Amino acid sequence: MIVAMQDRASEEQIQYVIDQLVRMGFEVHRSTGALKTVLGGVGSQTDFDTREIEMLAGVQEVHRITSPYRLAGRNFRPEGTIVKFANGLEIGGKNIVVMAGPCSVESREQLFTVSEQIAQAGARVLRGGAFKPRSSPYSFQGLGLEGLKLLREAGDRFNLLVISEVMEISQIELMLPYIDIFQVGARNMQNFNLLRELGKVRKPILLKRGISATFEELLCSAEYVLAGGNYEVILCERGIRTFETYTRNTMDISAIPIIHKLSHLPMTADPSHGTGRRDKVAPMARASVAAGADALLIEVHHQPDKALSDGAQSLYPQQFADLMGEIRMIAPAVGRTIA
Amino acid sequence: MIVAMQDRASEEQIQYVIDQLVRMGFEVHRSTGALKTVLGGVGSQTDFDTREIEMLAGVQEVHRITSPYRLAGRNFRPEGTIVKFANGLEIGGKNIVVMAGPCSVESREQLFTVSEQIAQAGARVLRGGAFKPRSSPYSFQGLGLEGLKLLREAGDRFNLLVISEVMEISQIELMLPYIDIFQVGARNMQNFNLLRELGKVRKPILLKRGISATFEELLCSAEYVLAGGNYEVILCERGIRTFETYTRNTMDISAIPIIHKLSHLPMTADPSHGTGRRDKVAPMARASVAAGADALLIEVHHQPDKALSDGAQSLYPQQFADLMGEIRMIAPAVGRTIA
Amino acid sequence: MIVAMQDRASEEQIQYVIDQLVRMGFEVHRSTGALKTVLGGVGSQTDFDTREIEMLAGVQEVHRITSPYRLAGRNFRPEGTIVKFANGLEIGGKNIVVMAGPCSVESREQLFTVSEQIAQAGARVLRGGAFKPRSSPYSFQGLGLEGLKLLREAGDRFNLLVISEVMEISQIELMLPYIDIFQVGARNMQNFNLLRELGKVRKPILLKRGISATFEELLCSAEYVLAGGNYEVILCERGIRTFETYTRNTMDISAIPIIHKLSHLPMTADPSHGTGRRDKVAPMARASVAAGADALLIEVHHQPDKALSDGAQSLYPQQFADLMGEIRMIAPAVGRTIA
Amino acid sequence: MIVAMQDRASEEQIQYVIDQLVRMGFEVHRSTGALKTVLGGVGSQTDFDTREIEMLAGVQEVHRITSPYRLAGRNFRPEGTIVKFANGLEIGGKNIVVMAGPCSVESREQLFTVSEQIAQAGARVLRGGAFKPRSSPYSFQGLGLEGLKLLREAGDRFNLLVISEVMEISQIELMLPYIDIFQVGARNMQNFNLLRELGKVRKPILLKRGISATFEELLCSAEYVLAGGNYEVILCERGIRTFETYTRNTMDISAIPIIHKLSHLPMTADPSHGTGRRDKVAPMARASVAAGADALLIEVHHQPDKALSDGAQSLYPQQFADLMGEIRMIAPAVGRTIA
Repeated sequence: MIVAMQDRASEEQIQYVIDQLVRMGFEVHRSTGALKTVLGGVGSQTDFDTREIEMLAGVQEVHRITSPYRLAGRNFRPEGTIVKFANGLEIGGKNIVVMAGPCSVESREQLFTVSEQIAQAGARVLRGGAFKPRSSPYSFQGLGLEGLKLLREAGDRFNLLVISEVMEISQIELMLPYIDIFQVGARNMQNFNLLRELGKVRKPILLKRGISATFEELLCSAEYVLAGGNYEVILCERGIRTFETYTRNTMDISAIPIIHKLSHLPMTADPSHGTGRRDKVAPMARASVAAGADALLIEVHHQPDKALSDGAQSLYPQQFADLMGEIRMIAPAVGRTIA
Repeated sequence: MIVAMQDRASEEQIQYVIDQLVRMGFEVHRSTGALKTVLGGVGSQTDFDTREIEMLAGVQEVHRITSPYRLAGRNFRPEGTIVKFANGLEIGGKNIVVMAGPCSVESREQLFTVSEQIAQAGARVLRGGAFKPRSSPYSFQGLGLEGLKLLREAGDRFNLLVISEVMEISQIELMLPYIDIFQVGARNMQNFNLLRELGKVRKPILLKRGISATFEELLCSAEYVLAGGNYEVILCERGIRTFETYTRNTMDISAIPIIHKLSHLPMTADPSHGTGRRDKVAPMARASVAAGADALLIEVHHQPDKALSDGAQSLYPQQFADLMGEIRMIAPAVGRTIA
Repeated sequence: MIVAMQDRASEEQIQYVIDQLVRMGFEVHRSTGALKTVLGGVGSQTDFDTREIEMLAGVQEVHRITSPYRLAGRNFRPEGTIVKFANGLEIGGKNIVVMAGPCSVESREQLFTVSEQIAQAGARVLRGGAFKPRSSPYSFQGLGLEGLKLLREAGDRFNLLVISEVMEISQIELMLPYIDIFQVGARNMQNFNLLRELGKVRKPILLKRGISATFEELLCSAEYVLAGGNYEVILCERGIRTFETYTRNTMDISAIPIIHKLSHLPMTADPSHGTGRRDKVAPMARASVAAGADALLIEVHHQPDKALSDGAQSLYPQQFADLMGEIRMIAPAVGRTIA
Repeated sequence: MIVAMQDRASEEQIQYVIDQLVRMGFEVHRSTGALKTVLGGVGSQTDFDTREIEMLAGVQEVHRITSPYRLAGRNFRPEGTIVKFANGLEIGGKNIVVMAGPCSVESREQLFTVSEQIAQAGARVLRGGAFKPRSSPYSFQGLGLEGLKLLREAGDRFNLLVISEVMEISQIELMLPYIDIFQVGARNMQNFNLLRELGKVRKPILLKRGISATFEELLCSAEYVLAGGNYEVILCERGIRTFETYTRNTMDISAIPIIHKLSHLPMTADPSHGTGRRDKVAPMARASVAAGADALLIEVHHQPDKALSDGAQSLYPQQFADLMGEIRMIAPAVGRTIA
């Protein structure tokens, strides 16, 4: 922590700040300039609130120079994390992985139709919601256990891994036999109790960035899972909230290279939620690959006009197949291939 | 729902949109102008996604004209909701209620010292966290059950009601014997499973606006609780995330008159979290009262430099007493008194 | 400037950074901890870009510890600036000044009707646009010189000072004989050429915060005027752009105490533009006074339904008179009176 | 315009709204449902403020269904605009054009060195600032006329067109002999007086999106230029302001396909300002091409550590050459080639 004192700070004020820093466990270095005294607090703590010092008399400003996360930081594993699955698939390696499927599991017929088509086009992971977080209490809330069973069956039939969203602690046990990756949605990115429980699980967690979460907050949330001993965390950009309302969210493509710099965890992109509009999914999926994404999550539905949720952002199977062709052309520009 | 067709939309496209609206349960009115056809979909549904129509061929834009919430809307109870407690205190009535206390319950000595001082200054409700949502897994996470017992004891001793935050479903049962109001924090505003369970409880819920939640989303979340049969919901502004980083959040004072217009539920303000800085709490508390707030939540600590959380935004007891004097002067300008 | 080096930074990298800092004119202090080296660059420059250092090899992060403005900072005049007018009116002193009038000057009849009513209710400054910045090229663009003359005449008749917006350099000369305060609108807050010219004028400038301007940027823009020798600058909050679209802008009431802390310049509030809705003007005007505003700008129109611009946010004269009564009650709570 | 009346709106209120719409020049269609009356106002006006109706008694909400711009809309020229230059270069056609160069023109040696290198790598337009908008009055403000002359000379020598920023009306005449494209910076996007003057010029205008400008506002600003008779307008995304501060701005890649849908004007991207960090320029440049950009603007400097402005976001010439290779690989995926 660096503390810049005000130009007129008294010696007494400076001493009080030093005492507080020492009490918080820091070793303190002092630089005294003509006008300004600057204090550097050095130590290995990550759990402190810089505002505690900021509010002291005579302090001008305070900056923390260590990140509040440790295990999620690039330094912890400079070579990067590759999440490996039993069938040989890897996320974070040389190949870019495409995960696709409907927003919600609606019926066996729907799920199997879509699964077959995405598998043929080259997807390797099947996505689909069994439990749905809906902003209205009157909306379709998912098929639950029945949906999980269908996902597993479709995944096995078409040789796809399965990812699905977990919304609360009691669902973890229920989902464990049926899915390969737990997805934590944007609204739960700071559901710390849920994250702590997922740290005890031994399956990968795909953690989506909250719509107003900073990169630091995203990595702090990943830290909750990692600190529990589960090191297989995959991060995902899915759009942030800005002043612009033409799209549902503004997809922050720059999050991809930034997270790659700050963290060793694989970074993926969800252009379906990132834009909320079918006609913008393909351009943003291509942009994500061009910016270095390790995987894509894409919603596909064979009859989007009849989807029970998010039909407006679901691609038709043919659009998805076309997109697969486009990203196969782009991947070599970033030294990658499609898995 | 209003659907504006593109200027060149074909009759076939228009018919397809009409068919979809009918399928969704709407009665359709059609206005054909020289250039433009506009379709009005009228009905009593609240659960639909306008983007489903927006994506159809020939559609220019779609607007919903009914809110997605019903029970939370002002129309449902035009005279406004007053939440009444056994000791005669009312939130949403003529009197403005002040809730105060430390961020976290840290010890008996701390809690009793602060409680006595805020009660003397005129607070009527004691706030204090027993379970703490912390962005870092390494931070102090609260005293849990021990904290709840201390809160009840202090509340009873100094004649204060007690409010404390609930973070997950399993805590509800635990908290029920000790607290008078359940607080749902900003990060859990869209934890729909938690909200649904709180709809079954028969104690008031104070629901804080998420840091990037629209008014519509806040009222949809309130709807989850109301739809469960618990009509005693109190809303709270506690700052939103904007581009400005000087303060932790930007407190949106305009939320107070806006929520009063859109909803019948009492609207309160938390200037401590809204600003994150002790020196900005009093101006924003005064502003909240001047804008019509029904209650205030204010963090107070007798030794904020030693607080285990959020000391930087906690008032000293004397500052709190001064503030009480100021808002007693302001309340009559909005036809209110301090409870 | 404080430079935190990465944990593994080499001695060579550290030396290169030190050399660059010296080249930029800083005296450098070095603190070497077990893990981390921190460099403090001390000097009196204000014109540098911290990113130049941030991009160097081995650097983790950089913080500036001096503000990029000098003359606008509170340190420059700790006792605060009071802008004084020939008729004895003061902005920034003990009295709160109310400026009111129509959005645009539309006609003699309109202007004189409104001016008389606001003067009776207690306004001391007449506002009104002669040149209008309009986002559409097809909108009413103001009466120009004719409007200026009417403003002067109405001001003289009803004993009101006159404020009006200047949009480009060529208008300064034209406006000088007719107005008492130049207003710079939010869209021109970073029109640096205009600001530089206004630094040469010897009349006060009311500078509005841009809708996405940080406090630092606002004060840098004020610095342009001050650096030209015009020290009579008045700042104004008029709403910022956030994700919420219910109101046109989100009025940041906290800007008032924050600017008072950072700068010596008077700080005022414009709740008409800050909310864009007539029914929210009074609550936000009251909140501004409660938060410590030195003056208010309020749009008033006797027939807002017929206004050529911004009728939706203009108060009826009776609403304005009622509001004056309310703020007279609030002012004493912050140790002020209404001018 | 569509007006949804409140459920309890009286017949008198409905009639008053109809009268106002007629007064504003609309033909009115009325749909009366069981609960709700909806009014459709149809006409060819573009200059009205929906809030005027929104504030009337009995009105629930109002939506405009025609855009406030005409000439900038896709409908005006569905096939798209191609801006053509005398040397055969086209922006908006099949080829993607790369514009590159230093942030500021600093000296003949600097400009010629950079120009040669970017020309060799494949750039077709030379960018460079002669007049610089700087947030601090103490920063380097550009070489002015001298800079313009150097730009022209370098452009002619290396067979590059020249683009440079115009900041105020008086500079237009001065720049005309030296440059091929006028650039309007983000801070001047709503400098309507400047835009109006540029409408009279017969050279292309590259108009950058303001950091908090909606798409509608960007197109309204383009309309000012088009309405003056200058149809050669090129739009540019250069980052918007969001809550995230890790990058200077958040580059909104989705703006590219969105503007292509809403408007016929070519859409370009400036990843240098869009990110503010050298290491993020290449990923975002690649993403822009993958998303369909018609041109790129990229800052390049042979000695960025010594640049007088924005060195931190300038690529080294070798990095620029590498990037050219990458985008040449990506362009075919979107059916394009590099000019």
